[in-house]
Amino acid sequence: MMDKPYVAGIDIGGQTTKLGIVDARGTVLSQTTIRTDTHTDVNLYLDDLNSALSRISEKLGGIGKLRGIGVGAPNGNYYSGVIENAVNLVWAGPNAIPFAKLLKDKTGIPVTLTNDANAAAVGEMTYGAAKGMNNFIMITLGTGVGSGIVINGEVLYGHDGFAGELGHTFAVKRNGRQCNCGRTGCLETYTSATGVARTAREWLEMTDDPSILRNITENITSKDVYEAASQGDKLAIKVFEYTGKLLGESFSDFVAFSAPEAIILFGGLARSGDLLLKPVLEHMNANLISIWKNKIQVLFSQLKESDAAILGASALGWSSK
Amino acid sequence: MMDKPYVAGIDIGGQTTKLGIVDARGTVLSQTTIRTDTHTDVNLYLDDLNSALSRISEKLGGIGKLRGIGVGAPNGNYYSGVIENAVNLVWAGPNAIPFAKLLKDKTGIPVTLTNDANAAAVGEMTYGAAKGMNNFIMITLGTGVGSGIVINGEVLYGHDGFAGELGHTFAVKRNGRQCNCGRTGCLETYTSATGVARTAREWLEMTDDPSILRNITENITSKDVYEAASQGDKLAIKVFEYTGKLLGESFSDFVAFSAPEAIILFGGLARSGDLLLKPVLEHMNANLISIWKNKIQVLFSQLKESDAAILGASALGWSSK
Repeated sequence: MMDKPYVAGIDIGGQTTKLGIVDARGTVLSQTTIRTDTHTDVNLYLDDLNSALSRISEKLGGIGKLRGIGVGAPNGNYYSGVIENAVNLVWAGPNAIPFAKLLKDKTGIPVTLTNDANAAAVGEMTYGAAKGMNNFIMITLGTGVGSGIVINGEVLYGHDGFAGELGHTFAVKRNGRQCNCGRTGCLETYTSATGVARTAREWLEMTDDPSILRNITENITSKDVYEAASQGDKLAIKVFEYTGKLLGESFSDFVAFSAPEAIILFGGLARSGDLLLKPVLEHMNANLISIWKNKIQVLFSQLKESDAAILGASALGWSSK
Repeated sequence: MMDKPYVAGIDIGGQTTKLGIVDARGTVLSQTTIRTDTHTDVNLYLDDLNSALSRISEKLGGIGKLRGIGVGAPNGNYYSGVIENAVNLVWAGPNAIPFAKLLKDKTGIPVTLTNDANAAAVGEMTYGAAKGMNNFIMITLGTGVGSGIVINGEVLYGHDGFAGELGHTFAVKRNGRQCNCGRTGCLETYTSATGVARTAREWLEMTDDPSILRNITENITSKDVYEAASQGDKLAIKVFEYTGKLLGESFSDFVAFSAPEAIILFGGLARSGDLLLKPVLEHMNANLISIWKNKIQVLFSQLKESDAAILGASALGWSSK
């Protein structure tokens, strides 16, 4: 194996794909990004990806030095290597794309696929806040809410490879907000970055409460809400309290399932610090049964977001076949 | 090991303890029951248990022929061997009882402890409806609601040994019915046998709807509700529809967690057949995201209830240390 000392990690998002070459110590030796949404034909996207891979491998001896490629993608199935029903990827949509096979055929390198949240969990376990933990849950709070569940040191894939869709458990009520998945009331409609912005916009419309957010004329984002809350804006602070309450209540159910040592928050919203963490802990502990009360840690990811995705995906590359 | 060809399985319930001697083929060779609730001193209970074990081992060559003892008990912790906070056991209550150690000291035989629902899951996997399955969830519908979660062929114990408390996830609303665990709205307050009876009594009180259940002068039980529903009583049928709806909705969240091949129903209420199964399937599938819709089986246990508890617990006896 000495002649194949590297792996590649690829993180596919709706707009951007991040890719990097990683060595056995977890150092990202070179990396780049390409657009995910340029082509509706997956073959053209794969051409772009292959070129980018060759480019960043060049100074390391070329693509032939890669032991394997790990890919994290929305709705990526570990068992089948297929991306199914990934509505946010323009070249996928409702179709089933046998992505691992297509990329292996294109590059000649073994490929392992999983979803982005599972890849992040692997990254966190190998290099971040979950180092040394065998049982934890990674919650990604970005455009949506994803999850990677680790049981006895291994990612939980379930019977079909799709386990860990905690963003699509029910938050408040089953007839709550409309979700992209077609149902209503999913956790991610409230507690994703998008959900936070949605809550703020709803409350601004429904109430007359003063808020500096009323000065924003364009579409309010979760970043705007965070900045307002940091400046002491009461409405914005209440939005974070509400978001944290829903997350904390849901976490109490997740703990009842797998009894993890910790729940780790990752992604844009995880940068909100105590604004989010305090209500999460308060409402999780208020709803945990006695054996778990005040015993479950909630931590923030310790990886740079850009690195984590590549590192997590790349870790899968070592076992690609 | 040929001189130790048997294991013992012990199932501890609030009122009755079932125990049996089992061979490597899973045949229950002899069994008996003792009262669980005669003594408040655990040592006196252990004396009774030890005597009963000796009695049923006698014709098989005595207790020395036992390779190990497996015990299923409420709140039994697999890792520590301790029964913690088992409010329904008179000799335990809120105390932590190091049961595995105490029983090993008393009998001289290695003991493995787990909770009753996990033991049932092992029994079902070894001898019942889950034979050959690597990923399933066992839901026990008795006085309470318990769960045993199997991932990759192994019971999920989690970080601390207490994973799988799905009866204490939230059913309808977080400010719902009062639960014995001290919180409100737990699934078991609605969907246990006790919960079904409670729903019927509430509805009889709140409405003027005609029902043959109004003829019952003593405390209505889930069995009464089942019999009334079987005779076409509309209110009783609606109670099962409501119970099945809450279970089905919760199952959709459980599937989002571990993507099991099947959910298996066990215990008193699982004898309700289609009265329960139809609404469970309807509401589970209505709430599953598309990748799982109509793909998850809901099955009834295939083991006699009395055997399952002993068999499940006994299976743990083979690996007792």
